[in-house]
Amino acid sequence: MSLKVYLAGPEVFLVNAREQLDRKIALTRTAGLIPVSPGDFVIPPQPTRRQFGHAISEIDERMMDSADAIIANLTPYHGVSADVGTCYELGYMCAQGKLAYAYTNVAANMKTRTVGHYDGDVFTDVNGRLRGRRDGLSVEDVDMVDNLMMQGGVERRGGQVVIHDAPADQLYTDTTAFEECLRLLAERRR
Amino acid sequence: MSLKVYLAGPEVFLVNAREQLDRKIALTRTAGLIPVSPGDFVIPPQPTRRQFGHAISEIDERMMDSADAIIANLTPYHGVSADVGTCYELGYMCAQGKLAYAYTNVAANMKTRTVGHYDGDVFTDVNGRLRGRRDGLSVEDVDMVDNLMMQGGVERRGGQVVIHDAPADQLYTDTTAFEECLRLLAERRR
Repeated sequence: MSLKVYLAGPEVFLVNAREQLDRKIALTRTAGLIPVSPGDFVIPPQPTRRQFGHAISEIDERMMDSADAIIANLTPYHGVSADVGTCYELGYMCAQGKLAYAYTNVAANMKTRTVGHYDGDVFTDVNGRLRGRRDGLSVEDVDMVDNLMMQGGVERRGGQVVIHDAPADQLYTDTTAFEECLRLLAERRR
Repeated sequence: MSLKVYLAGPEVFLVNAREQLDRKIALTRTAGLIPVSPGDFVIPPQPTRRQFGHAISEIDERMMDSADAIIANLTPYHGVSADVGTCYELGYMCAQGKLAYAYTNVAANMKTRTVGHYDGDVFTDVNGRLRGRRDGLSVEDVDMVDNLMMQGGVERRGGQVVIHDAPADQLYTDTTAFEECLRLLAERRR
């Protein structure tokens, strides 16, 4: 029986969302896996914006419940870190003991990006911890692509985080790392 | 039997992390609930930074597994959205059907903050969707404090997201909204 894979990521926000989601869906099928993709359901009109949001949240969670695995696109989004909806979804699937893989299209790791967030203006505190000058917040430095809950959650369950340095104009469309996740997942299933 | 509450948030990164975590722990006890707090365990030395990260990830997940509820601090962190580790944790607890509450110390909602991220340079596409000019990414506009997976996950389970506008210099230390979450959770338990 084939594995159902939930495709988590910020692709739903793209101008060419439908095209990019369809590309990932087709690649998943080619890898011999069954895609479960957000954006694949038409949400009926709702009385309020809030209720519309709830309807999407509910459909996405039901899709995750039906899936056996997740591939999370952790490419930084609107700041230092990954899309927060994707992070919620990764935690949701890890809690259910599902197979979890992830990837990022930015090779600079969490530490490097956070130091960049402070324009390099960081200092080492008395405990040897790196901190941003302007707010004193500590810089996570555990050799991971993002906050340790994400990469820890994936790797501690036997999954992998694939890193690929995509060109800036293909940050959310390059599928090199995604395809490697598909390959790893298909191989693990065998 | 008293409720065990996992206290999720970016407080571990603060200069005065211990003090702030202890404040939240004391407030939780005062509300008649049992705090389960990240940062409460000393991680033994590990051979690599990566393994150190894994050890924290494992302890945090075990603490969540032992808790009955979560209060997630969704105050924006290093960008438009909440701390991604906190979002992973909220998803992790929602998947287990635990009680979930959240708060933010920034009153401006997701739409307002995302438009700010684009310095106001947004446009409405042919489908009536708001998008950032420089990258075309859509602006989520469902009357929520952050990405809909978070607020949807909380509210669809009967929880609430408490909003408080803290002074800029108390963004991560003001406990007004946190205390309201404690009150709501203690009340719900009865």
